Amino acid sequence: MSAHDPIRGMEGRLDGGVVRVGGDARQRYYDSSGYGRPTGEEVALAPVEAAHLLFRGDLDTVDGMGFREFLAIDDRLVVRFLVYRDFRERGFYLSPAREGWVDASDLAGDAADDHDTDDSVGFDLIVYPPGKGPWDDEIAYRIRVVGERESIRASSLGRCVLAVVDEESELTYLDTRRPAIDGSTTYDRPNSVPGNLLADRAILWDPPDGLYEQAFYGQRLAGRGAEGGPLQLSLVETAFLLREDVIDLDVDLTAVVDRGRRVEGERFDRRLAVYTALREAGVVPKTGFKFGADFRTYADVASVDDLGHSERLVRALPADHAFAPRELSLDVRLAGGVHKRMTFALTTLTGEIDWLAVERLTP
Amino acid sequence: MSAHDPIRGMEGRLDGGVVRVGGDARQRYYDSSGYGRPTGEEVALAPVEAAHLLFRGDLDTVDGMGFREFLAIDDRLVVRFLVYRDFRERGFYLSPAREGWVDASDLAGDAADDHDTDDSVGFDLIVYPPGKGPWDDEIAYRIRVVGERESIRASSLGRCVLAVVDEESELTYLDTRRPAIDGSTTYDRPNSVPGNLLADRAILWDPPDGLYEQAFYGQRLAGRGAEGGPLQLSLVETAFLLREDVIDLDVDLTAVVDRGRRVEGERFDRRLAVYTALREAGVVPKTGFKFGADFRTYADVASVDDLGHSERLVRALPADHAFAPRELSLDVRLAGGVHKRMTFALTTLTGEIDWLAVERLTP
Repeated sequence: MSAHDPIRGMEGRLDGGVVRVGGDARQRYYDSSGYGRPTGEEVALAPVEAAHLLFRGDLDTVDGMGFREFLAIDDRLVVRFLVYRDFRERGFYLSPAREGWVDASDLAGDAADDHDTDDSVGFDLIVYPPGKGPWDDEIAYRIRVVGERESIRASSLGRCVLAVVDEESELTYLDTRRPAIDGSTTYDRPNSVPGNLLADRAILWDPPDGLYEQAFYGQRLAGRGAEGGPLQLSLVETAFLLREDVIDLDVDLTAVVDRGRRVEGERFDRRLAVYTALREAGVVPKTGFKFGADFRTYADVASVDDLGHSERLVRALPADHAFAPRELSLDVRLAGGVHKRMTFALTTLTGEIDWLAVERLTP
Repeated sequence: MSAHDPIRGMEGRLDGGVVRVGGDARQRYYDSSGYGRPTGEEVALAPVEAAHLLFRGDLDTVDGMGFREFLAIDDRLVVRFLVYRDFRERGFYLSPAREGWVDASDLAGDAADDHDTDDSVGFDLIVYPPGKGPWDDEIAYRIRVVGERESIRASSLGRCVLAVVDEESELTYLDTRRPAIDGSTTYDRPNSVPGNLLADRAILWDPPDGLYEQAFYGQRLAGRGAEGGPLQLSLVETAFLLREDVIDLDVDLTAVVDRGRRVEGERFDRRLAVYTALREAGVVPKTGFKFGADFRTYADVASVDDLGHSERLVRALPADHAFAPRELSLDVRLAGGVHKRMTFALTTLTGEIDWLAVERLTP
């Protein structure tokens, strides 16, 4: 396991959660390679740093333990070690996200977060940009390490890169952001266009052309590409347009919402809230069914005949949702494969929405 | 809405769930275009056929109703109509799956099925091969029409093509089959290779090379591509190899299974049953995490250095699972995008497995 034989034996000792190493450790570990925190001539190493030095053979023992024994001192150490090693092998310097190693200000969670204390806001590792190290003042990635079997509160994401260690110890990096959602689609809406509710859809038998052609509401009954004719609306489009008085059906808004809730429960309300927020931002949401999402979105629709590529896949989730990493991996992988950004709409019961974008990262 | 004006008015009447049309209807609808069931000179049309003829303007009214009124006679009619029309536009002839229209033997569900009577085993439409019709004796597809918001029992699939009508009335066709799962991977397993359990993985510190190189168990601790060295095993690999006496850890099988169940509950048992069935069939399962699945599988591994493309993505589900169409769409779309077959392992508590493959179909 040793990359090279050390010039002379280096030994560390566990002391209050860190590994202290004396001798020329400061020069050897910190100055030349960015490991640890200098304390005079000594260096204090976080366990993950000590594990990596043991693994490389650059440190011989810690309190007599080799790599194998040391890895067992803490259940969380092995997954952190795997991520730490991966960044080191990619040529990055990185530090554990703990006071003394990095500035306290770099450790603060996302200001927008407010969640239970049992869910770490923080990060596990701070990765510096290529060529930089702990002695510089720049950060490339704030890394949160999670095992495949842990669950992750959606509200705790938005600023960190998730490093997911799957059950076979392969790594997947997921960058999380809080994007601004806006578009430029505008349309002068008509009033009280008549139609009927038919099971899970409404049909407008003689709609103004612009409703579909310019604003991309609904779908022609005669199929895609049909010129004019009756327009089918989804239940969520129906509820939105009914509330805006754009259409006038044989039933009222309550009946439409009830029909939505009968099958979907609260999910229908969440989808309607997200649909509304997107439309109000000038973005056109259409069904994301073929991608397994709630919506695919077009930010700038001028005409259906000249429709670009949809930019995002949107999934409406309860604000307190916790992701299984595998579920996140599925959504993000699919979105990446079709060149769209996976975007989660974390939606409260009162319809407030936090947007969360997640995409795969290759450091 | 009318494709052409009829030569003379054709009128139908509702009678016991069918629409009867007299005059030259037999020649006009059945003989020349495969609509309906001839009853003497008259033709009996299923509602979906009558709806399509009304839509095309080839039938004027049914009991005085035009297309628009007729569509409202039954909540299920509109989704069936959309699918019926789509096949007609693609040039296929098709019939409703009901006695009198097609042979009773063609209507029987999958013999392997045994589920509640409230879940239709049957099909809604029978599609004939190109150039064939109801007067021939060949079937291209057995179609089951479902709305996006319906749930679909996994056990009822395997022989039909699902036609999913999404909330915007777009269609997605999913072909379902019961595949045979087999592979040719063989390996003479060693005995009692020692190792330790470390949190969610086991590490074999000095394993025989073939365990990884030939049989593709585990992952090198030193990373992919590393020659030799310690091997990490996932919990499910660990449980399987422990039960087979291939490895010998500091803990027993019960402790490993308990650790799996602690987070995953019964899902761990299902995954272990599926893993075991795949290995026993000569197929190598590895994690499907990056694809959001339980496993990706390789049927014929001779050497890890010469690994082909994995053929399937496998998800372990309870035998009584009911799919949301959107969930099915997500899995199948992702699998198609990476050229693998989405395969569900419907697994009972006692570990019996029915395999179900689902893929997108373009008729």
